[in-house]
Amino acid sequence: MTTDLAAVRRGIDQSGHDPLLLVDVVSSLGSIDFRMDEWRVDVALTGTQKGLMLPPGGAILCVGPRALEASEKNRTPRYFYDWRPVIRDMQQGFFPHTPATLLLFGLREALRMLFEEGLDDVLARHQRLADGTRAAVRAWGLPMLASDAARASNSLTAVVVDQVDSNKVVKVAAERLNLALGVGLGQLRGRVFRIGHLGSLNELEVLATLAGTELALHYSGQAIELGVGVAAAQRFFAGIAAAGAGRAAPAASVATAERVG
Amino acid sequence: MTTDLAAVRRGIDQSGHDPLLLVDVVSSLGSIDFRMDEWRVDVALTGTQKGLMLPPGGAILCVGPRALEASEKNRTPRYFYDWRPVIRDMQQGFFPHTPATLLLFGLREALRMLFEEGLDDVLARHQRLADGTRAAVRAWGLPMLASDAARASNSLTAVVVDQVDSNKVVKVAAERLNLALGVGLGQLRGRVFRIGHLGSLNELEVLATLAGTELALHYSGQAIELGVGVAAAQRFFAGIAAAGAGRAAPAASVATAERVG
Amino acid sequence: MTTDLAAVRRGIDQSGHDPLLLVDVVSSLGSIDFRMDEWRVDVALTGTQKGLMLPPGGAILCVGPRALEASEKNRTPRYFYDWRPVIRDMQQGFFPHTPATLLLFGLREALRMLFEEGLDDVLARHQRLADGTRAAVRAWGLPMLASDAARASNSLTAVVVDQVDSNKVVKVAAERLNLALGVGLGQLRGRVFRIGHLGSLNELEVLATLAGTELALHYSGQAIELGVGVAAAQRFFAGIAAAGAGRAAPAASVATAERVG
Amino acid sequence: MTTDLAAVRRGIDQSGHDPLLLVDVVSSLGSIDFRMDEWRVDVALTGTQKGLMLPPGGAILCVGPRALEASEKNRTPRYFYDWRPVIRDMQQGFFPHTPATLLLFGLREALRMLFEEGLDDVLARHQRLADGTRAAVRAWGLPMLASDAARASNSLTAVVVDQVDSNKVVKVAAERLNLALGVGLGQLRGRVFRIGHLGSLNELEVLATLAGTELALHYSGQAIELGVGVAAAQRFFAGIAAAGAGRAAPAASVATAERVG
Repeated sequence: MTTDLAAVRRGIDQSGHDPLLLVDVVSSLGSIDFRMDEWRVDVALTGTQKGLMLPPGGAILCVGPRALEASEKNRTPRYFYDWRPVIRDMQQGFFPHTPATLLLFGLREALRMLFEEGLDDVLARHQRLADGTRAAVRAWGLPMLASDAARASNSLTAVVVDQVDSNKVVKVAAERLNLALGVGLGQLRGRVFRIGHLGSLNELEVLATLAGTELALHYSGQAIELGVGVAAAQRFFAGIAAAGAGRAAPAASVATAERVG
Repeated sequence: MTTDLAAVRRGIDQSGHDPLLLVDVVSSLGSIDFRMDEWRVDVALTGTQKGLMLPPGGAILCVGPRALEASEKNRTPRYFYDWRPVIRDMQQGFFPHTPATLLLFGLREALRMLFEEGLDDVLARHQRLADGTRAAVRAWGLPMLASDAARASNSLTAVVVDQVDSNKVVKVAAERLNLALGVGLGQLRGRVFRIGHLGSLNELEVLATLAGTELALHYSGQAIELGVGVAAAQRFFAGIAAAGAGRAAPAASVATAERVG
Repeated sequence: MTTDLAAVRRGIDQSGHDPLLLVDVVSSLGSIDFRMDEWRVDVALTGTQKGLMLPPGGAILCVGPRALEASEKNRTPRYFYDWRPVIRDMQQGFFPHTPATLLLFGLREALRMLFEEGLDDVLARHQRLADGTRAAVRAWGLPMLASDAARASNSLTAVVVDQVDSNKVVKVAAERLNLALGVGLGQLRGRVFRIGHLGSLNELEVLATLAGTELALHYSGQAIELGVGVAAAQRFFAGIAAAGAGRAAPAASVATAERVG
Repeated sequence: MTTDLAAVRRGIDQSGHDPLLLVDVVSSLGSIDFRMDEWRVDVALTGTQKGLMLPPGGAILCVGPRALEASEKNRTPRYFYDWRPVIRDMQQGFFPHTPATLLLFGLREALRMLFEEGLDDVLARHQRLADGTRAAVRAWGLPMLASDAARASNSLTAVVVDQVDSNKVVKVAAERLNLALGVGLGQLRGRVFRIGHLGSLNELEVLATLAGTELALHYSGQAIELGVGVAAAQRFFAGIAAAGAGRAAPAASVATAERVG
């Protein structure tokens, strides 16, 4: 699901309160529109291994002036989460600890890649790849966890299965096809599996993922017609709108400006 | 096409002549069965960049005793193609020139990978991936250049198009999908394109290639039903035999022992 | 300096108290002898980027049973430093967070390298390279911060300069020679610079470091005879004992069994 | 040795003949001044693994118009050395064979590095590093094969030993110090060893090489005072002219414009 951060901001503004707004953009930064200034976000947190296309190993915090001020005034003891020595040293080009240098060099290159493609084009690509993925899931006849299409995530699609344990689908995909799907977490364990579609990704990789997912569903015992999801995604990519998808698409586009985060 | 080297050997044996047998196994070594000793091949030539899974840059010659003897007796002047200084120096662990060391280190690792998987399993994998590819082409309704299925190559499938210039398919695949197909060469230029399926390759990569090829055909103007080739390959991989493919498969398997090279 | 952990252990044992023993082995693990079990260390902490020869980015904790028990009984709130979810998940092959996978793969290879060379040989190599470095510093006529030779560190040598700001030596080494020396920290700032000699390191690299340090000292204005340190280290490596070094060496060797950590 | 190509050109011009001028610049291109147009060189041949700083594996030919014309007129049969299909295909962006793509990508980056540093600065760096190396050899009291200092090569220094087999020096350097020196070839076998100093190389690497060579000479039984060569090179790099070197340096500089190739 995508949280409509602009709406959250409006809700806060209308509440008469003025709390700090802290958001987790781990699965969205660099893949889905995010406007820290416009939405007056105080702290945004992400990791290196998603839309920033790097190996895992780093957390990245973007901290605005109101959060900094709160941090200065706060009197609770802290050590690891204390931003002050980091900020103080970084202003002179240093770190208070040994930094993960390879991730920093990688981050510089990742940002170059994102800006070379153009951030708008990156976001549009994720929209297109996610729309293709959702077209495939609809063709499979399986529900998506994000039942409201207008709020579906452009970086991840959680698919609900009813005839098999979703963990089995993930296991079979890994063992027989070398395909990494995600398991359902918490109370969704066994009921959904997740298809990731973010970062450095193109149409062929999405089609391969969908084709492999179809095989994994088939091998696991979930009744499915092989190829129908791939074909639906191909038709979407080729601009051959399916009836249902055709009607949904404009609505989804309109919704985009409002909702993402 | 696959040349039936065992049959060539039998033909030579029955001819009453005893020429040297020199074979080009560039597109087959490490992908399709090849038996240098059993078929009494005198020189086999390959490159690093196909079944050996390395970057291009090296040619590899396997030379048997009869070819060495002919080389010694031959009186024509030669320099680059003279094996004698190479063999002399190599026997002492040297090269008469600066060797392409990275390719040698890579070759050692590539051979480890092939033997770790097991050469029989590598060949069976190529058979399976090629059969899946051919099932897709048949589903497209397009002819393969290798009209005799029993002699089709397990490393490459040349597809004949009749409604478009095949160069256009290759160009569109590269530009719109970042997919590398091969052009038709010589008198086949414009009439066929080639799908490579050899080396380090699995089912998902084949399915991505087929899905992308379908899109490229569609974009180029060749009438095709999107997804039917992918579905046919999936059904083959899943062991759901199509009527035609089901009958052909056993015959192809029987033919394997006889034909490849 | 090297802390004599065995002596610390003996001191604790004789004190009649039984506190947890937590040690920082960041600069020593894999370079200087460390015996967690024999010295009954409860927690040892290191990083990836020193003796383990990996890029920076990971901290590694080795936790013994008494520390685990104390952690379980402890009632203070904690989150980042809470070991319990990590241990619980790891027992099933998982992590409670996304792990820095590249560092884990690298660690496996680093440990293979250490055990392939043999841990005793790795420690002896660090002893030899450190002895060579100290022979050079003595030849320069500059004091080492570790004035007691028997307690000098085998992974790092801090050199005291009196005619120049040590920060200038470090800066000149970086800018003119592409050589990374370490600055003095805290109250040693400007008075000492540090020569690191740990991890994947051989005699030639030590000699290059010493030769570059001599040039950086000369460029910075510290009077020094170029080459005398390199020559002293070479003579040590070649087994040509200098008078002073010859007498010191056996004493240092005897001390080794007692002191390191 | 460096061949004085400008003098060769003048000699040819004065001879009244007008042959093609073909030069081997394997060990010099990118390290020592070379002027193809000014010296009217018809063919220059180099490899990837020297001044171009790439792995070995590629030969690079630079061919001028007169050589091309001769090649067209020549009627002898040739295949591997036939430039015509290469030139024809390259004009359309193709190769008549599978190119060593990694070397081509690497070459683009290597040229960027050379031009980023500036070709004049690259040549001056090689001059400086070679002068430092020669200062070391003079300090060792060992003759250089290039007895005329004005014609010594800036990419390679061949050192003559008289008390030991030079192959032993090379072997000991490799086995005990992981240092790669070159053996003497042909009639120089056993009498000289070679120190390479070209490509991506800085002062510290030269000093490490010299320090290791001193140890290898010592271990092999060639009488040498450890450290004197390193010290001589350091003094040269620091601008502390030794008496002999001081007088030689200006002469060498003057000669540079005349001689190299």
